[in-house]
Amino acid sequence: MATYQKSFRLSTKGHCHVINIDSDVQKIVQASGIRSGIINVSGRGSTLGITTLEYEPGCVSDLERALNAIAPPNSNYAHNARWGDNNGYSHLRSALIGTAKSYPLVDGQLGTGTWQQIVLCDFDDCERDREVTVTIVGD
Amino acid sequence: MATYQKSFRLSTKGHCHVINIDSDVQKIVQASGIRSGIINVSGRGSTLGITTLEYEPGCVSDLERALNAIAPPNSNYAHNARWGDNNGYSHLRSALIGTAKSYPLVDGQLGTGTWQQIVLCDFDDCERDREVTVTIVGD
Amino acid sequence: MATYQKSFRLSTKGHCHVINIDSDVQKIVQASGIRSGIINVSGRGSTLGITTLEYEPGCVSDLERALNAIAPPNSNYAHNARWGDNNGYSHLRSALIGTAKSYPLVDGQLGTGTWQQIVLCDFDDCERDREVTVTIVGD
Repeated sequence: MATYQKSFRLSTKGHCHVINIDSDVQKIVQASGIRSGIINVSGRGSTLGITTLEYEPGCVSDLERALNAIAPPNSNYAHNARWGDNNGYSHLRSALIGTAKSYPLVDGQLGTGTWQQIVLCDFDDCERDREVTVTIVGD
Repeated sequence: MATYQKSFRLSTKGHCHVINIDSDVQKIVQASGIRSGIINVSGRGSTLGITTLEYEPGCVSDLERALNAIAPPNSNYAHNARWGDNNGYSHLRSALIGTAKSYPLVDGQLGTGTWQQIVLCDFDDCERDREVTVTIVGD
Repeated sequence: MATYQKSFRLSTKGHCHVINIDSDVQKIVQASGIRSGIINVSGRGSTLGITTLEYEPGCVSDLERALNAIAPPNSNYAHNARWGDNNGYSHLRSALIGTAKSYPLVDGQLGTGTWQQIVLCDFDDCERDREVTVTIVGD
């Protein structure tokens, strides 16, 4: 049994910027030498999300449109009223989608589908520098 | 410390087919011999979801109705326009719900509630053959 | 490698009561003595959710408002019709948000952001006594 952990950083544009981090995660999985276990992928912060998507412009656009309906940028957010912020919608989206997900490590490979990529969604209303931590436990 | 991993397959009808996989997961948990740890349950693909539900027809129907409002089958999806597909809503639902979840293993038992079952939701628009991987790490 | 697991209980008011359990989780992380790994936080039951939020009254209120739109308390739920219950919306919210999340343990600390707290959301329609299990695997 072993634990392997590595973090990396990336610059985002905010405004529901959806970034494919699948190859970053894959590289860490390969470097770990672990063959079977659980892979946790976590973005630090309260205005981002981690999920999976077929990473092509259509699916990215459909996700953005759906989130614009569920959590519109310009609705009356209590967070904005209280703090003079404009990113109440960013916090809401993050709470709904979640900032971390775990996937299986199977025979040394990330156990996700061919058309399924791990993405970081930056819901904030400005450019951000983000930290993603990948933690693998297994054999 | 040990890692135990097992996959199983199941046939689904698509169209938000919600399948109770709780006993499948329970059997793998029992076979593992592990008493305390983390259980990851993951469906492979970008048009399915894994979550928990009181598995009774009312809750299943309520989930389907809510997803029909959030991600209607026949809205104008950019994924469909780009690829000639009809399952843009399936991809969207999968990104929102997530394809994998982790639960605790407590005293040799799945640490979920009596009225809480692990379900696979097949959001695709056709019948599918699905692979679910259960990974347990612990003592 | 080690596994550390501890459960705690808390009383909730239901009706989308959002409770900051971050310090409870932090205490268990400290007690574990584990420095690097995965932390799973799981609430038992099918009418609650676990997620992260900037825990301030504005974000809490914004989350409640969004869930009132997605899963209104007084809609016509099939669960209610079938069982004479009033908490169909509670089950739906739980299935959408999820009852368990996993985060990284980095250098002996919970690897979440400064403005990001782990919360239990009790979606049920009455007061409840809840059990939360924290499971840590790592080195």
